[in-house]
Amino acid sequence: MGLVFTEWFPGSTGLSFRLVRTIESVQSPLQLVELFETETHGKLLVMDGCVMLTERDEVAYHEMIVHVPLLSHPNPRRVLVIGGGDGGTLREVVRHPQVEIARQVEIDGEVVRICKEHLPQIAAAYDNPKVDLIIGDGIEYVKQAPDASYDIILVDSTDPFGPALGLFGEDFYRNVDRILDKDGIMVCQAESAWYNMPMLQVITSTLGRIFPVVKVYSSQIPVYPSGTWSFGYASKGIDPLAAIDFARAEVIEQGGQYYTREIHQAAFALPMFVKRELGL
Amino acid sequence: MGLVFTEWFPGSTGLSFRLVRTIESVQSPLQLVELFETETHGKLLVMDGCVMLTERDEVAYHEMIVHVPLLSHPNPRRVLVIGGGDGGTLREVVRHPQVEIARQVEIDGEVVRICKEHLPQIAAAYDNPKVDLIIGDGIEYVKQAPDASYDIILVDSTDPFGPALGLFGEDFYRNVDRILDKDGIMVCQAESAWYNMPMLQVITSTLGRIFPVVKVYSSQIPVYPSGTWSFGYASKGIDPLAAIDFARAEVIEQGGQYYTREIHQAAFALPMFVKRELGL
Repeated sequence: MGLVFTEWFPGSTGLSFRLVRTIESVQSPLQLVELFETETHGKLLVMDGCVMLTERDEVAYHEMIVHVPLLSHPNPRRVLVIGGGDGGTLREVVRHPQVEIARQVEIDGEVVRICKEHLPQIAAAYDNPKVDLIIGDGIEYVKQAPDASYDIILVDSTDPFGPALGLFGEDFYRNVDRILDKDGIMVCQAESAWYNMPMLQVITSTLGRIFPVVKVYSSQIPVYPSGTWSFGYASKGIDPLAAIDFARAEVIEQGGQYYTREIHQAAFALPMFVKRELGL
Repeated sequence: MGLVFTEWFPGSTGLSFRLVRTIESVQSPLQLVELFETETHGKLLVMDGCVMLTERDEVAYHEMIVHVPLLSHPNPRRVLVIGGGDGGTLREVVRHPQVEIARQVEIDGEVVRICKEHLPQIAAAYDNPKVDLIIGDGIEYVKQAPDASYDIILVDSTDPFGPALGLFGEDFYRNVDRILDKDGIMVCQAESAWYNMPMLQVITSTLGRIFPVVKVYSSQIPVYPSGTWSFGYASKGIDPLAAIDFARAEVIEQGGQYYTREIHQAAFALPMFVKRELGL
């Protein structure tokens, strides 16, 4: 059957793609970055053996990590993205006219280079004048950033090992809290509730020691383990279900492929076993 | 890495399980039925190469195909299950004290035999006095059943080819409509919106020619293609969002692992691309 890429999820299943060809396979100083052309999912971006995205379903991840917090905030002017080197999160951020600055701190410049070259529809916002790209360490960046300097922080990281491990720690989240302004909201990718509940528990309990409002929501991501992915939501007070701005949300919804106002609310409904495991 | 079972979904991805052993592999007159012990998902039931269930996540499917319609109906006394030979749907049906008769018409007695022998926690209701098991053809059964003889019909079929193909046709649905009583509700499994939208479109448009209320809802099923599965909902008038019985739902929720009252409502929120493709 020709070339096949398979990611074996620890303790769970393996997901495979039939490949047409390998476009890039680059060992950056931080990780192995691979880009494949698949038979059925367009291009497939892989880092250290983990599926990051495919062209076929990346919208579900990027729309949900961005629009839920930005449409819960009354005026998201200053947005910080940690990670997200493929550019899909930035692309969705700049669709919000309130955004004045969309700053991204990505640790691996090679990821940005590959995505700008081969995934222009995802890395679509790097030329936008509101975007400020910093190649650097997000953990160091949040340590040094001024108090109350952002409205929204999106932690669009790889999985919690290697370069991304510190992005799931209490010190990092305390700095995130410090540099968020009074209505501030943080969202982070938070693994699969089916296959990595211990990590989701750590994330929510750590956030719970720092932020008054902590919730979990989810999105369908067919190419991630279990097909349903979790996001951690933390804020200084804004409830994402009460605060949704329906007029702005309608515009985002009409211009997108996944997010809707109903999905915004439905995404926070968790299966009974998840509620029990998280004590929600 | 030893024995691996992989299902390649047409036009999409492949999902693999590491196996401990093959428990049964039986060619019934209708299909190849295989049962495996996996390393991470308990037992895995496969028919004609398609994953039917694993012990690890079968609750998500069975709770959602049953509790959404039964908790939308004011008094679901008479329930008909077409297919569902593993028994998981029946197991959830008999949790509702209103149910007086839970009749199942399964075409392949070999499936029932294997599941009773090896999956007793799923095939748990076959000894229940409310259950009436008929080994036979569901299409023929609904042709001959009396008018208005059921409150709920659940079509828990295999995929739309081979023995199950007729369970997705207009003639079948017209008989389902005829044998449902005035508040009647039908739910059928309806494939993946990500990987089989043409089938979901056929199901909803066919149902729309017969039933006044037609909706689609979904559940997380990690071992089905895309990880999110669709159900078709059709009724003679009952809106599943307006009619939910919260008091009964709370009891079901407390005794289960997936369904909650919030999930009941959230499951009907569809991604924008699904709404557009279905014209909803």
